[in-house]
Amino acid sequence: MNPTIDLLMAHRSIRKFTNEQIGDMLLETLVAAGQAAASSSFLQGVTIMRVTDLDKRQQFVELANNQSYIATAPEFLVFCADLSRPIRCCEMHGGTPTRGFTEQFIIATVDAALYAQNVVIAAESAGLGICYIGAIRNDPARATTLLDLPENVYPVFGLCLGYPAQNPEPKPRLPMPVMLKENSYDASAEEAQIKAYDEVVRTYYASRTGNPKSQSWSEQMTDLLSKEARPHMRDFLSRQGFEMK
Amino acid sequence: MNPTIDLLMAHRSIRKFTNEQIGDMLLETLVAAGQAAASSSFLQGVTIMRVTDLDKRQQFVELANNQSYIATAPEFLVFCADLSRPIRCCEMHGGTPTRGFTEQFIIATVDAALYAQNVVIAAESAGLGICYIGAIRNDPARATTLLDLPENVYPVFGLCLGYPAQNPEPKPRLPMPVMLKENSYDASAEEAQIKAYDEVVRTYYASRTGNPKSQSWSEQMTDLLSKEARPHMRDFLSRQGFEMK
Repeated sequence: MNPTIDLLMAHRSIRKFTNEQIGDMLLETLVAAGQAAASSSFLQGVTIMRVTDLDKRQQFVELANNQSYIATAPEFLVFCADLSRPIRCCEMHGGTPTRGFTEQFIIATVDAALYAQNVVIAAESAGLGICYIGAIRNDPARATTLLDLPENVYPVFGLCLGYPAQNPEPKPRLPMPVMLKENSYDASAEEAQIKAYDEVVRTYYASRTGNPKSQSWSEQMTDLLSKEARPHMRDFLSRQGFEMK
Repeated sequence: MNPTIDLLMAHRSIRKFTNEQIGDMLLETLVAAGQAAASSSFLQGVTIMRVTDLDKRQQFVELANNQSYIATAPEFLVFCADLSRPIRCCEMHGGTPTRGFTEQFIIATVDAALYAQNVVIAAESAGLGICYIGAIRNDPARATTLLDLPENVYPVFGLCLGYPAQNPEPKPRLPMPVMLKENSYDASAEEAQIKAYDEVVRTYYASRTGNPKSQSWSEQMTDLLSKEARPHMRDFLSRQGFEMK
């Protein structure tokens, strides 16, 4: 279609990087591209923490399932949803800021994600590879302490960046009719569509791992939903000021 | 830097569209580009509702602050965070799905945002303009009824798409040092940086509106945080299955 769409379609996570560094100028270009993303009510409710301290990097490895590339990636950024800045603005003008609303949590979380995805696309357009690190939410309190995040800020996810030292295939996605519906939500055809997709995913994993008994997508989802999902998040967020009112 | 980064930097919301329609093929290309975005645990926790029904469009106008371009835009999509699909997978395999965790809410909300931002960039690369519609959360229960969304699905935001019939300037963003910090969160320099930025924003609005007394950014934030933020969201989400455990 066009080179930008080709780039979007070619996305895959990269977990092995060459030693080549990302210069400060390129990094700032990526961050500027992130800032250009839309922001709800122009809140710009995001702070990016660039983690260059090697001891902190190692601690992030530990708290995120020992994903060692967090330490070795040329850059590791933590995207934080940040309501503390507009709160400071409000106080600066003598106002009494409302806080703790679920809606505010959504706004800042979405802002962080839109911003990050722009950084990702800018990075990939410059030949870099990326990997999102949701596992920093395994221990968000420790991540918060490591980065000295104040109240009303929380770490949403990390992002590793560097030049790829691997070239995996993009993972096959759900068939479009499953994800795109018109006017009214109707899932009646999904079971058959997902069963067909299951075989596509199984074949994809089998070709990568050599194991013909690889999991299908619906089996992966079953495993995922059979476990509690980071049950500490709610209390952590409340302590951090996100009360989910 | 490169054409993709130039494109990202040139983003601005478009609220006036020409009558030119977006063909189904282009729309499907944009959605495919969206699907290629990263997804936490490969959950793909998103459904896009394409709203072509004109009566439903009009009802979205009403529930979203009378933003008339929701009715007139060639396409209007509603991005939904969708946990119902993995729950159905789990049940299909005889499992007992966990649900209601805040973490699951975050995963699906972030998935929807990453997906949407890819659709946006693909659209802009094809010459389209876009406008996110957060105001569908003014009445998310009505939006949910309009689209027949099942439990464990919620409408995060809308998106208008079409060929631009206006050409606004990009809005100036916060200075980079405010948003990008290294290793440790330090806001001690922010007040001065924000005051300088306030004048940039005031000048930007003054040049658009002719009113030299336009609001600064920190004044906008003060107004925004002086009001309750959609206090219905929490109850709506709970009823929809997002209990924020």
